[in-house]
Amino acid sequence: MYPVFERFAYLNAGSAGPLARATAEAVASARRRELEEGRSGPPFFERMQAGRVAARAAIAGEIGVPAEHVALTRATTDGCNIVLNGLALGPDDEVVTTDSEHFGLLGALRVSGVRVRVARLRGLPAADIVDAIVAEVGRRTRLLALSHVLWTTGHVVPVHELKEATGLPALVDGAQSVGVIPVDASALDFYTVSCQKWLCCPDSSGGLYVRDPDALRVTFPSYFSQQAYERDGSFTPREGAARFDNGWLAVGLLAGIRTALAAHPEWRFERAHEMARRCRELLAQRVEVVSEADQGTLVAFRVAGDAAAAAKRAHEQGVIIRDLPGTDLLRASCGYWTSDEDLERLVAAVAG
Amino acid sequence: MYPVFERFAYLNAGSAGPLARATAEAVASARRRELEEGRSGPPFFERMQAGRVAARAAIAGEIGVPAEHVALTRATTDGCNIVLNGLALGPDDEVVTTDSEHFGLLGALRVSGVRVRVARLRGLPAADIVDAIVAEVGRRTRLLALSHVLWTTGHVVPVHELKEATGLPALVDGAQSVGVIPVDASALDFYTVSCQKWLCCPDSSGGLYVRDPDALRVTFPSYFSQQAYERDGSFTPREGAARFDNGWLAVGLLAGIRTALAAHPEWRFERAHEMARRCRELLAQRVEVVSEADQGTLVAFRVAGDAAAAAKRAHEQGVIIRDLPGTDLLRASCGYWTSDEDLERLVAAVAG
Repeated sequence: MYPVFERFAYLNAGSAGPLARATAEAVASARRRELEEGRSGPPFFERMQAGRVAARAAIAGEIGVPAEHVALTRATTDGCNIVLNGLALGPDDEVVTTDSEHFGLLGALRVSGVRVRVARLRGLPAADIVDAIVAEVGRRTRLLALSHVLWTTGHVVPVHELKEATGLPALVDGAQSVGVIPVDASALDFYTVSCQKWLCCPDSSGGLYVRDPDALRVTFPSYFSQQAYERDGSFTPREGAARFDNGWLAVGLLAGIRTALAAHPEWRFERAHEMARRCRELLAQRVEVVSEADQGTLVAFRVAGDAAAAAKRAHEQGVIIRDLPGTDLLRASCGYWTSDEDLERLVAAVAG
Repeated sequence: MYPVFERFAYLNAGSAGPLARATAEAVASARRRELEEGRSGPPFFERMQAGRVAARAAIAGEIGVPAEHVALTRATTDGCNIVLNGLALGPDDEVVTTDSEHFGLLGALRVSGVRVRVARLRGLPAADIVDAIVAEVGRRTRLLALSHVLWTTGHVVPVHELKEATGLPALVDGAQSVGVIPVDASALDFYTVSCQKWLCCPDSSGGLYVRDPDALRVTFPSYFSQQAYERDGSFTPREGAARFDNGWLAVGLLAGIRTALAAHPEWRFERAHEMARRCRELLAQRVEVVSEADQGTLVAFRVAGDAAAAAKRAHEQGVIIRDLPGTDLLRASCGYWTSDEDLERLVAAVAG
């Protein structure tokens, strides 16, 4: 199903998931057709529109929300920028984030002009995450902006509990959660989806859940944002979150999203959890493991020497993991597709 | 070279250009490799970085500017939003545009909050374009935001002359100019490139020229915008226009851009101009042609009855053109690849 496993112990879905043969074929088939029939004309546009409808519904299904509340984006970075630019917060407003966020969220926070308060999670037990974040909330805090699963350690941030404890709206970066742990985003305010990671979609595919589309300004409109417009640019936004759709997605990309999402088995979460558990246990016999048990499906660990060099050596042995820049940590991503043999190869490569 | 011409008189590069076999093969080859080797690991990231360098240089070459002044985007819409959001204009500022712009520019203008003044060009001779635009400029005008070639009629807007006459900065939408008429954007301030149209690149590829990157705020940052960042999101922007790069571009897409751009012959502009001239003359014998001679390479014309229905009928006869919504016009796009036979089929389909 995933050809990469024929050659590699591919343990980096946290950066980009393995591609299934069927997904690549869906993309290739659309491209062959475009090569022969061109990329326009009424049937082409019908396929494109139908592809957007199907992709939106499929992404919505992954996070338990209605399709009308999902925008089609190209990345989690897009979603963060759309939300933080659209909220129109100012220098008197505070947003609470953590010290373990990806730049896709942090950059958007920074340019929004808000005051950023950073909860220190590094080195903290997972059980202390909620308290550390709540401690940063003050009377000027307008938003929580953080990951559901930390991309560094894989620790789970209890986002629903945090929302309840603080009563604040939450922008949640779902890059390391959607597709690998069960997610119900419906009670949250904004939730981003990175389709190319755990969902194994083609590059540059993503989604954004917006619980109340009318309460967020459109600040990055595309042709897909409007249902009618005037010559001075005034426009009637589309119903629901589709107004935040920020650009063209190739017909093949849309087909690839649907194919990839349809391929995942029902038992995926349990199996990924189990393989992360085994990964952690195997590594812990040989190296220092930083990630706690029973969190997400990323396993961070420390080896002697330079982490980047170690990741490179592992690659030469057919094991694909990543180092975490600015630290001495390596990270392995476990999915339902991970085998015991992959884990044995990993241990041999990093502690052999 | 372009398989679509084996079956269709494909005359809609103004929406999306024909794909060359070599371009599709460059994309497919990268995808095969990703299928087998995964989408991460040191060699993968080296290919991705090298691909960005090459694509940036190739796009810069198309508009006669240094690569350091070009951002990699995914569409002209991205470029317009990046510029208009980044300029931080307000309700006391005016921007002059025209009544013949695409929503990609208009929507960005609208949400920027500026006052929009719309020069009326519809129905005007091409020779009157400059006067009509200059007449809208007032003491509060901060920017000209308009197309180089109008997507409706193909008429050329003398952007350099306008900049000289008004002394204003100019954001130029290059969707219908780059690749089909000679463009030197260096004296302009902001210039967008739609790679998937006349440059025949894969979907979702584009560029943005920024003459003075330090004078434009980064308001839609991506991981590619920074060279270093702190945990609160403060970041050191990359040198030059690369700080406006707004997201991931697949390795295959980058290879496709370079392959597509390398395939165009030196004589492309003369030939496209000549084929547009022939198209206009042939159509004018049978229907009312709206586009003037010796402008861009789009030919707009009027047929009896509903234009959308006429475009659909033409498609059924193997002729791909488009209607212009809200008008009774059809539009044919002529490139260097257009043949006399394509034009004969066009005339037979719309006036047969």
